[in-house]
Amino acid sequence: MSKLLKDCVGELSKLPGIGRRTAMRLAVHLLRMESESVAEMTSAISRFRNEIRRCRHCNNLSDDELCSICSDPERDRTTVCVVEQVSDVLSIENTHQYRGLYHVLGGVISPMQGIAPSDLKIDLLVDNIARGEIREVILAVSTSVEGETTLFYIMNRLRQFPGLKVTSIARGIGFGDELEYVDELTITHALRNRREIE
Amino acid sequence: MSKLLKDCVGELSKLPGIGRRTAMRLAVHLLRMESESVAEMTSAISRFRNEIRRCRHCNNLSDDELCSICSDPERDRTTVCVVEQVSDVLSIENTHQYRGLYHVLGGVISPMQGIAPSDLKIDLLVDNIARGEIREVILAVSTSVEGETTLFYIMNRLRQFPGLKVTSIARGIGFGDELEYVDELTITHALRNRREIE
Repeated sequence: MSKLLKDCVGELSKLPGIGRRTAMRLAVHLLRMESESVAEMTSAISRFRNEIRRCRHCNNLSDDELCSICSDPERDRTTVCVVEQVSDVLSIENTHQYRGLYHVLGGVISPMQGIAPSDLKIDLLVDNIARGEIREVILAVSTSVEGETTLFYIMNRLRQFPGLKVTSIARGIGFGDELEYVDELTITHALRNRREIE
Repeated sequence: MSKLLKDCVGELSKLPGIGRRTAMRLAVHLLRMESESVAEMTSAISRFRNEIRRCRHCNNLSDDELCSICSDPERDRTTVCVVEQVSDVLSIENTHQYRGLYHVLGGVISPMQGIAPSDLKIDLLVDNIARGEIREVILAVSTSVEGETTLFYIMNRLRQFPGLKVTSIARGIGFGDELEYVDELTITHALRNRREIE
Protein backbone atom coordinates (compact mmCIF):
# COMPACT_ATOMS: atom_id res chain seq x y z
CA MET A 1 0.00 0.00 0.00
CA SER A 2 1.22 3.47 -0.87
CA LYS A 3 2.83 5.20 2.12
CA LEU A 4 1.24 8.53 1.17
CA LEU A 5 -2.19 6.88 1.15
CA LYS A 6 -1.51 4.97 4.36
CA ASP A 7 -0.41 8.16 6.14
CA CYS A 8 -3.45 10.09 4.90
CA VAL A 9 -5.90 7.32 5.90
CA GLY A 10 -4.10 6.88 9.24
CA GLU A 11 -4.37 10.57 10.08
CA LEU A 12 -8.01 10.87 9.01
CA SER A 13 -9.02 7.82 11.04
CA LYS A 14 -7.74 9.54 14.21
CA LEU A 15 -10.81 11.77 13.98
CA PRO A 16 -13.82 10.70 16.07
CA GLY A 17 -16.41 8.61 14.22
CA ILE A 18 -14.10 8.02 11.26
CA GLY A 19 -12.95 4.42 10.88
CA ARG A 20 -10.47 3.11 8.33
CA ARG A 21 -13.14 2.44 5.72
CA THR A 22 -14.57 5.95 5.96
CA ALA A 23 -11.03 7.40 5.95
CA MET A 24 -10.31 5.42 2.79
CA ARG A 25 -13.47 6.73 1.17
CA LEU A 26 -12.50 10.30 2.14
CA ALA A 27 -8.99 9.79 0.69
CA VAL A 28 -10.44 8.57 -2.63
CA HIS A 29 -12.70 11.64 -2.60
CA LEU A 30 -9.70 13.95 -2.00
CA LEU A 31 -8.22 12.69 -5.28
CA ARG A 32 -11.36 13.69 -7.13
CA MET A 33 -11.29 17.18 -5.61
CA GLU A 34 -9.32 20.01 -7.23
CA SER A 35 -5.87 20.39 -5.69
CA GLU A 36 -6.78 24.00 -4.81
CA SER A 37 -9.94 22.89 -2.95
CA VAL A 38 -7.90 20.46 -0.87
CA ALA A 39 -5.40 23.25 -0.13
CA GLU A 40 -8.26 25.52 0.96
CA MET A 41 -9.53 22.79 3.26
CA THR A 42 -6.20 22.05 4.94
CA SER A 43 -5.53 25.78 5.24
CA ALA A 44 -8.94 26.39 6.91
CA ILE A 45 -8.21 23.56 9.38
CA SER A 46 -4.72 24.91 10.19
CA ARG A 47 -5.88 28.50 10.58
CA PHE A 48 -8.77 27.40 12.79
CA ARG A 49 -6.52 25.31 15.03
CA ASN A 50 -3.75 27.91 15.30
CA GLU A 51 -5.55 31.27 15.25
CA ILE A 52 -8.80 30.63 17.09
CA ARG A 53 -9.08 32.32 20.49
CA ARG A 54 -11.38 32.18 23.47
CA CYS A 55 -13.67 35.14 24.13
CA ARG A 56 -12.32 36.95 27.18
CA HIS A 57 -15.88 37.50 28.42
CA CYS A 58 -17.76 34.24 27.76
CA ASN A 59 -15.10 31.64 26.76
CA ASN A 60 -16.84 31.02 23.41
CA LEU A 61 -14.65 30.49 20.34
CA SER A 62 -13.67 33.82 18.87
CA ASP A 63 -11.54 35.41 16.15
CA ASP A 64 -10.86 38.40 18.42
CA GLU A 65 -10.61 39.22 22.10
CA LEU A 66 -14.40 39.42 22.32
CA CYS A 67 -16.65 36.99 20.40
CA SER A 68 -19.23 38.16 17.86
CA ILE A 69 -22.08 37.57 20.33
CA CYS A 70 -20.50 39.45 23.27
CA SER A 71 -19.59 42.37 21.00
CA ASP A 72 -23.05 42.55 19.39
CA PRO A 73 -24.88 45.63 20.79
CA GLU A 74 -28.24 44.07 19.84
CA ARG A 75 -27.90 41.20 22.34
CA ASP A 76 -29.65 41.34 25.72
CA ARG A 77 -26.82 41.72 28.23
CA THR A 78 -29.03 41.00 31.27
CA THR A 79 -29.44 37.29 30.45
CA VAL A 80 -26.68 34.69 30.23
CA CYS A 81 -27.12 31.09 29.15
CA VAL A 82 -24.54 28.71 30.62
CA VAL A 83 -23.58 25.80 28.34
CA GLU A 84 -20.98 23.05 28.46
CA GLN A 85 -19.31 23.50 25.10
CA VAL A 86 -19.00 25.62 21.99
CA SER A 87 -21.31 23.43 19.89
CA ASP A 88 -24.12 24.02 22.41
CA VAL A 89 -23.98 27.76 21.59
CA LEU A 90 -24.59 26.92 17.95
CA SER A 91 -27.42 24.52 18.75
CA ILE A 92 -29.22 27.28 20.67
CA GLU A 93 -28.32 30.00 18.14
CA ASN A 94 -29.86 27.87 15.38
CA THR A 95 -33.28 28.17 17.07
CA HIS A 96 -33.15 32.01 16.61
CA GLN A 97 -35.16 32.25 19.86
CA TYR A 98 -32.50 33.44 22.27
CA ARG A 99 -31.17 36.99 22.29
CA GLY A 100 -29.07 36.98 25.48
CA LEU A 101 -25.39 36.21 26.02
CA TYR A 102 -23.71 32.83 26.57
CA HIS A 103 -21.15 31.43 28.94
CA VAL A 104 -19.14 28.40 27.81
CA LEU A 105 -17.93 26.30 30.77
CA GLY A 106 -15.62 24.14 28.66
CA GLY A 107 -16.92 20.87 30.09
CA VAL A 108 -18.61 19.50 33.21
CA ILE A 109 -17.28 18.58 36.65
CA SER A 110 -16.15 14.95 36.46
CA PRO A 111 -14.09 13.41 39.28
CA MET A 112 -13.83 10.26 37.14
CA GLN A 113 -12.08 12.19 34.35
CA GLY A 114 -10.23 14.42 36.81
CA ILE A 115 -12.15 17.57 35.84
CA ALA A 116 -12.47 19.84 38.89
CA PRO A 117 -14.57 23.04 39.13
CA SER A 118 -11.33 25.04 38.76
CA ASP A 119 -10.81 23.48 35.31
CA LEU A 120 -14.04 25.10 34.12
CA LYS A 121 -14.71 28.79 33.53
CA ILE A 122 -16.93 29.13 36.60
CA ASP A 123 -14.89 31.90 38.28
CA LEU A 124 -15.19 33.95 35.08
CA LEU A 125 -18.98 33.48 35.18
CA VAL A 126 -19.13 34.59 38.84
CA ASP A 127 -16.94 37.63 38.03
CA ASN A 128 -19.21 38.59 35.12
CA ILE A 129 -22.32 38.35 37.34
CA ALA A 130 -20.60 40.33 40.15
CA ARG A 131 -20.42 43.27 37.72
CA GLY A 132 -24.19 43.60 38.28
CA GLU A 133 -25.62 43.81 34.76
CA ILE A 134 -26.88 40.19 34.58
CA ARG A 135 -30.43 39.56 35.90
CA GLU A 136 -30.98 35.93 34.87
CA VAL A 137 -28.72 32.92 34.50
CA ILE A 138 -30.14 30.05 32.43
CA LEU A 139 -28.36 26.78 33.14
CA ALA A 140 -28.40 24.65 29.98
CA VAL A 141 -26.05 21.82 30.99
CA SER A 142 -26.72 18.19 30.09
CA THR A 143 -28.77 15.85 32.28
CA SER A 144 -25.90 13.44 32.96
CA VAL A 145 -24.70 12.83 36.54
CA GLU A 146 -21.74 15.12 35.78
CA GLY A 147 -24.10 17.75 34.37
CA GLU A 148 -26.28 17.65 37.50
CA THR A 149 -23.18 17.91 39.73
CA THR A 150 -22.04 20.94 37.75
CA LEU A 151 -25.52 22.46 37.96
CA PHE A 152 -25.64 22.18 41.75
CA TYR A 153 -22.09 23.45 42.14
CA ILE A 154 -22.88 26.57 40.08
CA MET A 155 -26.18 27.10 41.91
CA ASN A 156 -24.28 27.11 45.21
CA ARG A 157 -21.75 29.60 43.90
CA LEU A 158 -24.58 31.88 42.73
CA ARG A 159 -26.34 31.99 46.12
CA GLN A 160 -24.17 35.04 46.93
CA PHE A 161 -26.25 37.10 44.47
CA PRO A 162 -29.67 37.47 46.18
CA GLY A 163 -31.54 39.29 43.37
CA LEU A 164 -30.29 36.93 40.62
CA LYS A 165 -32.83 34.67 38.88
CA VAL A 166 -31.35 31.21 38.22
CA THR A 167 -33.29 28.92 35.87
CA SER A 168 -32.69 25.60 34.17
CA ILE A 169 -33.91 24.62 30.70
CA ALA A 170 -37.02 22.41 30.84
CA ARG A 171 -36.59 18.66 30.93
CA GLY A 172 -39.28 16.84 29.00
CA ILE A 173 -40.15 14.75 26.00
CA GLY A 174 -38.62 16.02 22.79
CA PHE A 175 -40.76 16.82 19.77
CA GLY A 176 -41.03 13.70 17.62
CA ASP A 177 -39.90 11.43 20.45
CA GLU A 178 -42.09 8.42 21.15
CA LEU A 179 -42.92 7.79 24.80
CA GLU A 180 -42.08 4.13 24.30
CA TYR A 181 -38.41 4.91 23.75
CA VAL A 182 -37.98 7.70 26.30
CA ASP A 183 -36.11 6.82 29.52
CA GLU A 184 -37.90 6.72 32.91
CA LEU A 185 -36.08 9.72 34.37
CA THR A 186 -37.14 11.97 31.50
CA ILE A 187 -40.76 10.76 31.74
CA THR A 188 -40.69 11.36 35.52
CA HIS A 189 -39.46 14.93 34.95
CA ALA A 190 -41.95 15.50 32.15
CA LEU A 191 -44.80 14.32 34.41
CA ARG A 192 -43.70 16.43 37.38
CA ASN A 193 -43.31 19.54 35.25
CA ARG A 194 -46.65 19.07 33.46
CA ARG A 195 -48.40 22.29 32.50
CA GLU A 196 -52.08 23.13 32.38
CA ILE A 197 -53.33 23.52 28.82
CA GLU A 198 -54.87 26.95 28.34
CA MET B 1 -20.16 32.81 14.80
CA SER B 2 -16.38 32.91 14.47
CA LYS B 3 -15.22 33.19 10.86
CA LEU B 4 -12.34 30.78 11.50
CA LEU B 5 -14.79 28.20 12.87
CA LYS B 6 -17.29 28.83 10.07
CA ASP B 7 -14.59 28.34 7.41
CA CYS B 8 -13.31 25.16 9.04
CA VAL B 9 -16.80 23.66 9.40
CA GLY B 10 -17.69 24.75 5.86
CA GLU B 11 -14.64 23.06 4.37
CA LEU B 12 -15.04 19.85 6.39
CA SER B 13 -18.71 19.54 5.43
CA LYS B 14 -17.72 19.47 1.75
CA LEU B 15 -16.46 15.93 2.37
CA PRO B 16 -18.89 13.10 1.54
CA GLY B 17 -20.98 11.85 4.47
CA ILE B 18 -20.00 14.80 6.67
CA GLY B 19 -22.86 17.15 7.45
CA ARG B 20 -22.64 20.40 9.38
CA ARG B 21 -23.21 18.72 12.74
CA THR B 22 -20.45 16.17 12.20
CA ALA B 23 -18.15 18.91 10.86
CA MET B 24 -18.86 20.93 14.01
CA ARG B 25 -18.02 17.92 16.17
CA LEU B 26 -14.78 17.39 14.23
CA ALA B 27 -13.85 21.07 14.65
CA VAL B 28 -14.40 20.86 18.42
CA HIS B 29 -12.21 17.74 18.42
CA LEU B 30 -9.45 19.56 16.50
CA LEU B 31 -9.21 22.04 19.37
CA ARG B 32 -8.60 19.20 21.82
CA MET B 33 -5.85 17.78 19.63
CA GLU B 34 -2.26 18.95 19.97
CA SER B 35 -1.41 21.65 17.44
CA GLU B 36 1.39 19.39 16.11
CA SER B 37 -1.06 16.49 15.54
CA VAL B 38 -3.34 18.75 13.52
CA ALA B 39 -0.31 19.93 11.51
CA GLU B 40 0.65 16.28 10.86
CA MET B 41 -2.89 15.57 9.67
CA THR B 42 -3.14 18.53 7.27
CA SER B 43 0.36 17.78 6.00
CA ALA B 44 -0.51 14.10 5.33
CA ILE B 45 -3.63 15.22 3.42
CA SER B 46 -1.67 17.78 1.35
CA ARG B 47 1.18 15.41 0.57
CA PHE B 48 -1.26 12.66 -0.40
CA ARG B 49 -3.19 14.96 -2.72
CA ASN B 50 -0.12 16.54 -4.32
CA GLU B 51 2.47 13.78 -4.44
CA ILE B 52 0.47 10.62 -5.07
CA ARG B 53 0.97 9.06 -8.51
CA ARG B 54 -0.62 6.35 -10.60
CA CYS B 55 1.31 3.12 -11.13
CA ARG B 56 2.50 3.05 -14.74
CA HIS B 57 1.68 -0.66 -14.93
CA CYS B 58 -1.65 -1.14 -13.11
CA ASN B 59 -3.02 2.40 -12.48
CA ASN B 60 -3.15 1.78 -8.71
CA LEU B 61 -2.17 4.64 -6.38
CA SER B 62 1.56 4.72 -5.95
CA ASP B 63 4.38 6.70 -4.38
CA ASP B 64 6.68 5.83 -7.27
CA GLU B 65 6.48 4.96 -10.95
CA LEU B 66 5.55 1.39 -10.06
CA CYS B 67 3.27 0.58 -7.13
CA SER B 68 4.35 -1.61 -4.20
CA ILE B 69 2.33 -4.56 -5.55
CA CYS B 70 3.67 -4.43 -9.13
CA SER B 71 7.24 -4.07 -7.85
CA ASP B 72 6.89 -6.93 -5.34
CA PRO B 73 8.82 -9.97 -6.70
CA GLU B 74 6.72 -12.30 -4.48
CA ARG B 75 3.50 -11.58 -6.38
CA ASP B 76 2.22 -13.97 -9.02
CA ARG B 77 2.66 -12.07 -12.29
CA THR B 78 0.56 -14.53 -14.30
CA THR B 79 -2.74 -13.44 -12.70
CA VAL B 80 -4.30 -9.98 -12.85
CA CYS B 81 -7.42 -8.91 -10.99
CA VAL B 82 -9.34 -6.08 -12.68
CA VAL B 83 -11.12 -3.70 -10.29
CA GLU B 84 -12.99 -0.45 -10.64
CA GLN B 85 -11.17 1.69 -8.12
CA VAL B 86 -8.27 2.00 -5.72
CA SER B 87 -10.30 1.11 -2.63
CA ASP B 88 -11.24 -2.23 -4.25
CA VAL B 89 -7.53 -3.19 -4.27
CA LEU B 90 -7.44 -2.63 -0.52
CA SER B 91 -10.67 -4.55 0.06
CA ILE B 92 -9.17 -7.58 -1.71
CA GLU B 93 -5.72 -7.16 -0.15
CA ASN B 94 -7.35 -7.22 3.30
CA THR B 95 -8.51 -10.80 2.69
CA HIS B 96 -4.82 -11.93 2.32
CA GLN B 97 -6.09 -14.55 -0.15
CA TYR B 98 -4.89 -13.09 -3.41
CA ARG B 99 -1.24 -13.07 -4.51
CA GLY B 100 -1.55 -11.87 -8.11
CA LEU B 101 -1.42 -8.38 -9.57
CA TYR B 102 -4.21 -5.83 -9.97
CA HIS B 103 -5.46 -3.55 -12.65
CA VAL B 104 -7.40 -0.44 -11.62
CA LEU B 105 -9.83 0.69 -14.33
CA GLY B 106 -10.60 3.99 -12.67
CA GLY B 107 -14.37 3.57 -12.97
CA VAL B 108 -16.96 1.75 -15.08
CA ILE B 109 -18.44 2.47 -18.48
CA SER B 110 -21.43 4.73 -17.92
CA PRO B 111 -23.13 6.47 -20.85
CA MET B 112 -25.35 8.26 -18.26
CA GLN B 113 -22.30 9.87 -16.63
CA GLY B 114 -20.50 10.24 -19.93
CA ILE B 115 -17.81 7.67 -19.07
CA ALA B 116 -16.67 5.93 -22.27
CA PRO B 117 -14.33 2.90 -22.51
CA SER B 118 -11.54 5.29 -23.54
CA ASP B 119 -11.88 7.08 -20.18
CA LEU B 120 -10.87 3.85 -18.40
CA LYS B 121 -7.46 2.16 -18.37
CA ILE B 122 -8.61 -0.69 -20.63
CA ASP B 123 -5.98 -0.14 -23.34
CA LEU B 124 -3.27 -0.36 -20.69
CA LEU B 125 -4.74 -3.70 -19.53
CA VAL B 126 -4.78 -5.05 -23.11
CA ASP B 127 -1.18 -3.88 -23.62
CA ASN B 128 -0.08 -5.63 -20.41
CA ILE B 129 -1.76 -8.88 -21.49
CA ALA B 130 -0.26 -8.62 -25.00
CA ARG B 131 3.18 -8.89 -23.38
CA GLY B 132 2.29 -12.57 -22.81
CA GLU B 133 3.09 -13.15 -19.13
CA ILE B 134 -0.53 -13.05 -17.90
CA ARG B 135 -2.41 -16.39 -17.93
CA GLU B 136 -5.61 -15.41 -16.09
CA VAL B 137 -7.66 -12.23 -15.85
CA ILE B 138 -10.09 -12.08 -12.91
CA LEU B 139 -12.82 -9.52 -13.48
CA ALA B 140 -13.89 -8.12 -10.11
CA VAL B 141 -16.17 -5.30 -11.20
CA SER B 142 -19.42 -4.53 -9.38
CA THR B 143 -22.73 -6.18 -10.26
CA SER B 144 -24.39 -2.94 -11.36
CA VAL B 145 -25.62 -2.42 -14.91
CA GLU B 146 -22.53 -0.28 -15.58
CA GLY B 147 -20.33 -2.99 -14.09
CA GLU B 148 -21.87 -5.66 -16.34
CA THR B 149 -21.47 -3.41 -19.38
CA THR B 150 -17.80 -2.92 -18.51
CA LEU B 151 -17.37 -6.67 -17.95
CA PHE B 152 -18.75 -7.55 -21.38
CA TYR B 153 -16.78 -4.80 -23.07
CA ILE B 154 -13.52 -6.08 -21.55
CA MET B 155 -14.41 -9.71 -22.38
CA ASN B 156 -14.84 -8.72 -26.02
CA ARG B 157 -11.50 -6.95 -26.04
CA LEU B 158 -9.83 -10.04 -24.55
CA ARG B 159 -11.13 -12.46 -27.19
CA GLN B 160 -7.99 -11.68 -29.22
CA PHE B 161 -5.96 -13.71 -26.68
CA PRO B 162 -7.01 -17.35 -27.29
CA GLY B 163 -5.04 -19.02 -24.46
CA LEU B 164 -6.12 -16.47 -21.83
CA LYS B 165 -8.38 -17.63 -19.02
CA VAL B 166 -10.97 -14.96 -18.19
CA THR B 167 -12.89 -15.40 -14.93
CA SER B 168 -15.35 -13.36 -12.95
CA ILE B 169 -15.57 -13.30 -9.16
CA ALA B 170 -18.48 -15.43 -7.93
CA ARG B 171 -21.92 -14.03 -7.50
CA GLY B 172 -21.61 -14.28 -3.75
CA ILE B 173 -21.88 -10.54 -3.73
CA GLY B 174 -25.42 -9.24 -3.63
CA PHE B 175 -26.78 -7.23 -6.53
CA GLY B 176 -26.40 -3.53 -5.91
CA ASP B 177 -23.68 -4.03 -3.28
CA GLU B 178 -20.49 -2.06 -3.82
CA LEU B 179 -17.21 -3.92 -3.27
CA GLU B 180 -16.03 -1.13 -1.03
CA TYR B 181 -18.64 -2.01 1.61
CA VAL B 182 -18.53 -5.81 1.42
CA ASP B 183 -16.93 -7.78 4.28
CA GLU B 184 -13.66 -9.72 3.80
CA LEU B 185 -15.24 -13.19 4.11
CA THR B 186 -17.70 -12.57 1.29
CA ILE B 187 -14.93 -11.18 -0.88
CA THR B 188 -12.77 -14.25 -0.07
CA HIS B 189 -15.57 -16.63 -1.09
CA ALA B 190 -16.31 -14.65 -4.21
CA LEU B 191 -12.65 -14.86 -5.19
CA ARG B 192 -12.38 -18.60 -4.50
CA ASN B 193 -15.58 -19.39 -6.39
CA ARG B 194 -14.66 -17.44 -9.48
CA ARG B 195 -15.90 -19.17 -12.62
CA GLU B 196 -14.59 -19.22 -16.15
CA ILE B 197 -16.76 -17.24 -18.49
CA GLU B 198 -17.92 -19.43 -21.39
